[in-house]
Amino acid sequence: MADAADGKLKDLSISETKKSKKDGAAKTAAKKPQQTKKKIEGAALIGIDVAKEDDLGEWYQQVITKGQMISYYDVAGCYILEPSSYAIWENIKSWFDAKIKTLKVRNAYFPVFISQDNLEREKEHVEGFAAEVAWVTMGGKSKLDKPVAVRPTSETAMYPYFARKIQSHRDLPLKLNQWNNVVRWEFKHPMPFIRSREFLWQEGHTAHLTQEAASEEVRQILTWYADVYQDLLAVPVVQGVKTVNEKFPGADYTTTIEGFIPATGRGIQAATSHALGQHFSKMFNITVEDPNAKEAGKSEHVHVWQNSWGLTTRSIGVMILTHGDRRGLVIPPRVAEIQVIVIPVGVTAKMTPEAKEELYKKVQGIADDLKSVDIRVETDYREGYSPGWKFNDWELKGIPLRIEFGPKDAEKGQVTTSRRDIDDKDQARGETKVDDLKEAIPKLLEQIQSDMFNKAKKAYDDHRVQLTNWDDFVPTLNGKNVVLVPHCEGEKCEDEVKAKSARTALGDGVAEDKQAPAMGAKSLCIPFDQPDGGIKEGTKCINPDCTAVAKSWILFGRSY
Amino acid sequence: MADAADGKLKDLSISETKKSKKDGAAKTAAKKPQQTKKKIEGAALIGIDVAKEDDLGEWYQQVITKGQMISYYDVAGCYILEPSSYAIWENIKSWFDAKIKTLKVRNAYFPVFISQDNLEREKEHVEGFAAEVAWVTMGGKSKLDKPVAVRPTSETAMYPYFARKIQSHRDLPLKLNQWNNVVRWEFKHPMPFIRSREFLWQEGHTAHLTQEAASEEVRQILTWYADVYQDLLAVPVVQGVKTVNEKFPGADYTTTIEGFIPATGRGIQAATSHALGQHFSKMFNITVEDPNAKEAGKSEHVHVWQNSWGLTTRSIGVMILTHGDRRGLVIPPRVAEIQVIVIPVGVTAKMTPEAKEELYKKVQGIADDLKSVDIRVETDYREGYSPGWKFNDWELKGIPLRIEFGPKDAEKGQVTTSRRDIDDKDQARGETKVDDLKEAIPKLLEQIQSDMFNKAKKAYDDHRVQLTNWDDFVPTLNGKNVVLVPHCEGEKCEDEVKAKSARTALGDGVAEDKQAPAMGAKSLCIPFDQPDGGIKEGTKCINPDCTAVAKSWILFGRSY
Repeated sequence: MADAADGKLKDLSISETKKSKKDGAAKTAAKKPQQTKKKIEGAALIGIDVAKEDDLGEWYQQVITKGQMISYYDVAGCYILEPSSYAIWENIKSWFDAKIKTLKVRNAYFPVFISQDNLEREKEHVEGFAAEVAWVTMGGKSKLDKPVAVRPTSETAMYPYFARKIQSHRDLPLKLNQWNNVVRWEFKHPMPFIRSREFLWQEGHTAHLTQEAASEEVRQILTWYADVYQDLLAVPVVQGVKTVNEKFPGADYTTTIEGFIPATGRGIQAATSHALGQHFSKMFNITVEDPNAKEAGKSEHVHVWQNSWGLTTRSIGVMILTHGDRRGLVIPPRVAEIQVIVIPVGVTAKMTPEAKEELYKKVQGIADDLKSVDIRVETDYREGYSPGWKFNDWELKGIPLRIEFGPKDAEKGQVTTSRRDIDDKDQARGETKVDDLKEAIPKLLEQIQSDMFNKAKKAYDDHRVQLTNWDDFVPTLNGKNVVLVPHCEGEKCEDEVKAKSARTALGDGVAEDKQAPAMGAKSLCIPFDQPDGGIKEGTKCINPDCTAVAKSWILFGRSY
Repeated sequence: MADAADGKLKDLSISETKKSKKDGAAKTAAKKPQQTKKKIEGAALIGIDVAKEDDLGEWYQQVITKGQMISYYDVAGCYILEPSSYAIWENIKSWFDAKIKTLKVRNAYFPVFISQDNLEREKEHVEGFAAEVAWVTMGGKSKLDKPVAVRPTSETAMYPYFARKIQSHRDLPLKLNQWNNVVRWEFKHPMPFIRSREFLWQEGHTAHLTQEAASEEVRQILTWYADVYQDLLAVPVVQGVKTVNEKFPGADYTTTIEGFIPATGRGIQAATSHALGQHFSKMFNITVEDPNAKEAGKSEHVHVWQNSWGLTTRSIGVMILTHGDRRGLVIPPRVAEIQVIVIPVGVTAKMTPEAKEELYKKVQGIADDLKSVDIRVETDYREGYSPGWKFNDWELKGIPLRIEFGPKDAEKGQVTTSRRDIDDKDQARGETKVDDLKEAIPKLLEQIQSDMFNKAKKAYDDHRVQLTNWDDFVPTLNGKNVVLVPHCEGEKCEDEVKAKSARTALGDGVAEDKQAPAMGAKSLCIPFDQPDGGIKEGTKCINPDCTAVAKSWILFGRSY
């Protein structure tokens, strides 16, 4: 089996990027882009050889492949989620699934295929998705009578069922969720986790008797999405509502959480919770007899109020982009498949086999202690690798905490700890008595978790710049910020802002963000938390060519 | 919204069946086939109106839709898994997932699309699946350069990754699993759960250094599959190996568990675990340096030994067909979403509001007690429905145990229980002291579980007939049995047996099995547990036109 040299990997990645920019459909590298055991014996080769600040695209590719989150695949825009990233998804899933069960949401499964007829039932919806729907047209060697769509989202798959199931107000609320795969055959530059043609997500779909009940749920779900990002992934987000331009096709309004990638200064949509209003219930004829009208002796049918809400594997990508560093992945403890790696050190050639066995036994004892308090822990006894090599290997994989244990530690009855989230070696190190491990390590992991969040939050806060003068708009974006500006909420005006803030040429100070097209800033959201409690009456819209007054502070940014 | 009358539902189902027989692609009914609240106020309409023995197909359709397991969908061969069936799948999933984790199998996710190139890499494999692969040929309005297959199974999606990841014998074993959806665009008559164009499953894929290690795992997995059926779904199975004719395309051999549907006397494949040998590792070039050769100073590459194994949502269908009765579903306690339903009874118009509140409080107390010992319990306080109507409703849904509680029970400090699995009303009933509930109910549920299994096992045992005379072969099949016969294991001979046992006309005594084509018996498996410890030397093959001697007792049957 031939090995790919690291140099080759780099070439492949770059050429992929270039190609995909040119023809709009990246041919992902099918040839072994992974690290191999044979190569990594030279420790220098195992690490990341490009700085995050210098070339985020290249850095990201190296981090996700060498860190074993993603492996490339020979269908463009599709990626393999390796066990360590899938484990993060499972952790997110079990947390969120438990939350929605408290609202009596039930899981179900609807087919991956949608008939053209249903897909096209809601006009705005189909217009929003038509360009990126994958169609199955052949079964075996036979052409299908009617092609079927691979679901890009399941509103139109599920709502005929809602129409059948909801016959009386007593059938409300109806709350379903599914954990599944969806396909959006995009021709934009793909990016693992962030924009792929297939991704995993949950999609919740609910129907309510009243608009209030629906609205309340929309916000409850959004809060939990924010919790997934902030409390599990240690990624700060801003909660708000999308402008009309950016809302979900077919929704009344879309609430959203918006993240931020400091390395490029670009915003990123993190998850959305949509109030669909009665758009779909009208198209799919989902009605009940109004119980209030009935009480008053009248018979009146009302259309139900619907929501849909989704959280995707994109979240893992945002986590990686936020926390990763020059040594590779940095995974927050709460979602890490492995939280602690224990490595025996100080094993010398002079050591007797008995002494070594004794040491390993103690290492195992440490691991067992941690397991007993529900820490996800592994040990690394691999022969033929130096401790230093192992340190690098587990750092690359982002394991939050390393415990080293050698004869000297044994003498002192302690272990040496090393936190992955702190770059400075000395500051990252600590010592803990073996007897205290069961209490100290869980605490330390929680400390890592909150420190990671606070660091990321500071970066977001520092780069979310409030301004009112158009002249500052583009320079501030170019300084890797997103901006909070007064805006009229007009759809055309928003388009104008986008056009005006597009970079006209390279060399404007953000040339290092090579993968970003010369993009303008779009609105990310209208944050719920408005500066100064809301826009002051009479404030002008930021767009110098707009004569309207601002309705709110809107977060604008270049974005993913 | 228009209601579908039950009469219509029946018509739709029948016409679907007829249509699909004719043109081979069932148009499933998109028009409200579900029961509706409006209708079920007349209790007579809610139940199943055809006997399982009289028309299994029609009975099954009614049971799965009225029992809210399945809802129909407007893409032929695709079905909606409603929350109560999906919950069963989640229970199976969490049990089996924990088992495979003890073998250090890790979950991952591979793309739903497979390139034609990879799909066709293993000749026998692609021949086995080519006729039923769904192809995506369009993205939006653009024709794809190269169509991509929707995975019918993921060997060919995963093994290029195996080739990259496995570089040294230290990378072995590699054990991955995924819980996902797969598509087989079959043109045979579809049947919800049993044969659908999309289904959910887990597919495990592993690579080993030695054939022994691979073989051991194949059998371990099969044992767990048998446990899923027998211990969770209360469905008896026979373990064995498939004949060459029936093995997985591309496998060395396929081990299988085979179930039985007494109502039709047909066998049904329940789950399979394949030893792939080196077929795929040769095609995908998955090799390691032989560590033994290396020790001996030689350099020799060996192809890895691979397995794949899958368990699907078909299991839920087998469970329904096995246990369901004239009143609807009967769900085994261990997998039921709701194990116990508590219903207040004896609430009369004369009752004071206080007395009613007092009663309901006690009902809630019973439910809370049961929850505290991890019983999945619900209460039914619905107004406007009689207890009798509620009994029918929950029986239809197959809830394993009903608890009734009324003023008289309260006086005696007891509850009345009613087991779903026993048909005779009096025999199904029991009484339990309220104070004993936390101990008695879990025990009773376990009793129901084992009684359900034993009953089903007896039915299977009674209808698995050992015979050596060809003259008995077809009549025994016609008597709704599967047969255990001496066979030469020859592929052609097996085809002959199949052809000879096909029914040539209706009216041969099994006319009630309307949905079964006039099918011959195929080999279900060569059971591991051979009668009399194996075939006696010199025993003739059952096929009168075969001159070979039998190699083993083979289980033959008409099948799904």
